[in-house]
Amino acid sequence: MTLLVTNIGELRTHADAGTLADAALVIDGERIAWIGSNADAPAADGCFDAAGRAVLPGWVDSHTHLVFAGDRSAEFAARMAGEAYAAGGIQATVDATRAASDDELREHGRRLRDEGGRGGTTTIEAKTGYGLDVASEARLARVSAEVADVVTFLGAHLVPSGVHRRDYLDLVTGPMLAAVTPYASFIDVFCERGAFTVDEAREVLEAGRAAGLKLKVHGNQLGHSGGVALAVELGATSVDHVNHLDAADIDALAGSRVVATILPGADLSTRERLAPARELADAGVRLAIASNANPGTSFTTSMPFCIATAVLQHRLSLDEALAAATTGGAAALGLDGTPDAVGRIAVGGLASFQVLRAPSAAHIPYRPGVDLTAAVYRRGARLR
Amino acid sequence: MTLLVTNIGELRTHADAGTLADAALVIDGERIAWIGSNADAPAADGCFDAAGRAVLPGWVDSHTHLVFAGDRSAEFAARMAGEAYAAGGIQATVDATRAASDDELREHGRRLRDEGGRGGTTTIEAKTGYGLDVASEARLARVSAEVADVVTFLGAHLVPSGVHRRDYLDLVTGPMLAAVTPYASFIDVFCERGAFTVDEAREVLEAGRAAGLKLKVHGNQLGHSGGVALAVELGATSVDHVNHLDAADIDALAGSRVVATILPGADLSTRERLAPARELADAGVRLAIASNANPGTSFTTSMPFCIATAVLQHRLSLDEALAAATTGGAAALGLDGTPDAVGRIAVGGLASFQVLRAPSAAHIPYRPGVDLTAAVYRRGARLR
Repeated sequence: MTLLVTNIGELRTHADAGTLADAALVIDGERIAWIGSNADAPAADGCFDAAGRAVLPGWVDSHTHLVFAGDRSAEFAARMAGEAYAAGGIQATVDATRAASDDELREHGRRLRDEGGRGGTTTIEAKTGYGLDVASEARLARVSAEVADVVTFLGAHLVPSGVHRRDYLDLVTGPMLAAVTPYASFIDVFCERGAFTVDEAREVLEAGRAAGLKLKVHGNQLGHSGGVALAVELGATSVDHVNHLDAADIDALAGSRVVATILPGADLSTRERLAPARELADAGVRLAIASNANPGTSFTTSMPFCIATAVLQHRLSLDEALAAATTGGAAALGLDGTPDAVGRIAVGGLASFQVLRAPSAAHIPYRPGVDLTAAVYRRGARLR
Repeated sequence: MTLLVTNIGELRTHADAGTLADAALVIDGERIAWIGSNADAPAADGCFDAAGRAVLPGWVDSHTHLVFAGDRSAEFAARMAGEAYAAGGIQATVDATRAASDDELREHGRRLRDEGGRGGTTTIEAKTGYGLDVASEARLARVSAEVADVVTFLGAHLVPSGVHRRDYLDLVTGPMLAAVTPYASFIDVFCERGAFTVDEAREVLEAGRAAGLKLKVHGNQLGHSGGVALAVELGATSVDHVNHLDAADIDALAGSRVVATILPGADLSTRERLAPARELADAGVRLAIASNANPGTSFTTSMPFCIATAVLQHRLSLDEALAAATTGGAAALGLDGTPDAVGRIAVGGLASFQVLRAPSAAHIPYRPGVDLTAAVYRRGARLR
C-alpha cells in the first residue's frame, strides 16, 4: 500500500537539510519510498493533499515519566502560590502508582502517549521511578515497554520513605536492576540535593552500564549538582534539565558527545531558572527538547508548546529548536545513525511525520497555544 | 429545547463564586434555566454528561485585531533572531489588508474567531486599524461587526506612510470616525513612541467620546508612554498592554475603574518585559486577560495559552487569571452588570460556557499546551 503526500508547501526532511518548497513524498508501508518535487511525484495507491502546508518529522520526546497514577494539581497550585519545588513530591505519585492496577497504569499511559501523538510525537521514551521497590519498578518497566518506544530505569529517582539509603542503593544496583533489564535500555539517576549525590549517582550508573544499559542523568536542575560533570565523565548519552550551569559545565558538554536535554515545560512549571539553551547552542553542545511529561513538574505532553517556549523564551532559533525536538531527541535515545533512525524523513527510513495546519514550521512559535497539527503518521500508520 | 448538563465535577459559575462539586445545569434555548446539585437535576429534552469534568464560563477575549490579511512570519523570525519590536511592522499588514477582498477578510476573520472558539472563547472583540484610510477603516469596521461581538475603532494605530500627521489626525477624528460609528462601540489609540503622543491620543479619544464611543487605550507597552495616566484621566473602560508601569501608574489604576488588560501572548512574542500583573492584582486593579490576536505581535487565539502564561509567568493565581479571562474581559467590554452579561454562568443569563477535558480548571496552567477543551456552548449553540 503506497500513499502520495502531495502539494507540500514546506518540507523539512532533516534538521540540517533546510526546507524544500512544492515538494511531495511517497510512503510504502511503514517506510518512505520517495521524496522529490511535487511536479515529479509518481502515482500511488492513495493520496493526501497537504494543500501547501508544512510537513516535518514527527517529534522525538526523549524524556517523559509517562506511566503513573494520581494527581498533583494541589501541589501545583501551592507552587503557583509561592512554594518552591522540592524533589519530595515524587513520593505522592509513588504511593498512588503502587496502588493502581496494571490496566489502570497502561490505560493512563496510553492516553498520555496518544495525547502527545495528536501533537505530533511519534517516538516517546518513558522512565520508571514511581515504583521504588523491586516489584513495582519491574511492573513499571514492563508496562512502560508496552506504552513507549524506549524505557529508562529510574529506580534512583528518590530514596523511598522508610528505606535506609544504603539498602536502597543496594536494591537499585542489584535485584531491582536485574528485574528491569528485560525492558529497559537506559539507566537514569536524579542527581540533585534531596535525591542522590554524585558518588551515589556514579555507583548507580556504573552498575547500569555493567548490566548493558546506556546512561542518562537528571542533572543540575535545582543547583550545581555535579550531574553534568558526571554525565561527561561517564560518557552518558544525555544529561537532562541543565538549568544551573557554569562555564566549566558548558565547556565540558561542548567537548563531549553528551546531549543536553532542555525541558521547557518543567522550567516554567517549577518557575526554575530557564536552562541556558542559547549559551549551550552557541558553544556547540548538541541539544534535545523533551516534554518531561509527569504529574509533578511538567504535566504536558505537548512538544509544540515546548518548542514554542524554547524559541520564545530560551531564545533558540526555529531551526535549532526543531532540530532539538527531532534529531536531537533521536541522539538522546541512541536512535540516530541507522536506517531506522527517528526524527528525520529519508528515503528508506521510517514514515513518521506530521502535516501542520500552517504553511511553515515557523508558525509553531509564531502561533503558541494554537493546535497546528493536521495529521500525524507513525511508521506509515495515521495517528491523527 | 432544554439541555441538562449533568455530572459536573467542578462548576465555576462566576469569578467570585468559588467552585461547586457534583453540580448540574440546564439550558433553555440560549439561556441558563437552572443551576444546582447533580442529585436535584430536573429532566430536560437532552442530556450532556460532563462525566466529572469541569464546567466554566466561555472566555471573553476583549482585545484582538482579528480582521486582516497577510503574514508576518518573516518579521517574527527576525525578532526571534534578536531584532527589537517596533510599531512600524503594522504597515505591512495594512498593505496586505487593503489589497484583500471583503470575502477574504471575512473568511480569514471567521477562521480565527472559530479557532478561538474551539479553545473556549465565546465573546470576542475586534479592532480596526489595518485600513488607515476612510474607506478601508469603514470596511474593516463593517466586516469586524460581522465576525466579532464588539468592534473597536483603531484608526489611530499608526500614521500611514505618505500621510501628514496633522492631516491624518483630522481624518481619524473627522470623516473616518463618522464612517465607523455605525459599527463600533469603542475607540482606541496606540499611545506609544512611534505611534501617537499623549496629546494626540487625548484628541482622538475625546473625538470618539463626543461621537458616542467608549474609550480604550493601548498604553505603556514599549515604555512609559503616558497611556495609563491618560486612560485614568479620561475614564477609559480599559488600558491594554501595561508592560511599563511605575508606582504612580499602579496607584492611579487602583484608584480608578479602568480595567488593566494584560496580553501574555504579546509579552512573550515581543520578548517585552512582562506586564506586572501580580503587582496590579495586589494593588486591587481590575484585570482582564486577552489574546491580542494579530499577525505581528501575538498570532494566537488561544485564551488557555494566555491564562496558563499569566499563572506560570505573570504569577497570577488561578482564580485571578480565570476572573481576568471572564468577568474581567466582560468589564473591559462594558458587557457586565446586565442580564446579558458575558463571562459568567447565571440563571437567566446567556448559556455561554465550556466543558474541559479535565476535572478542574487548575489543569489549564498545570497542563500547558494540551488541548483541554471538550465542548463549548455559545448562547446555547454548541460550537465544539
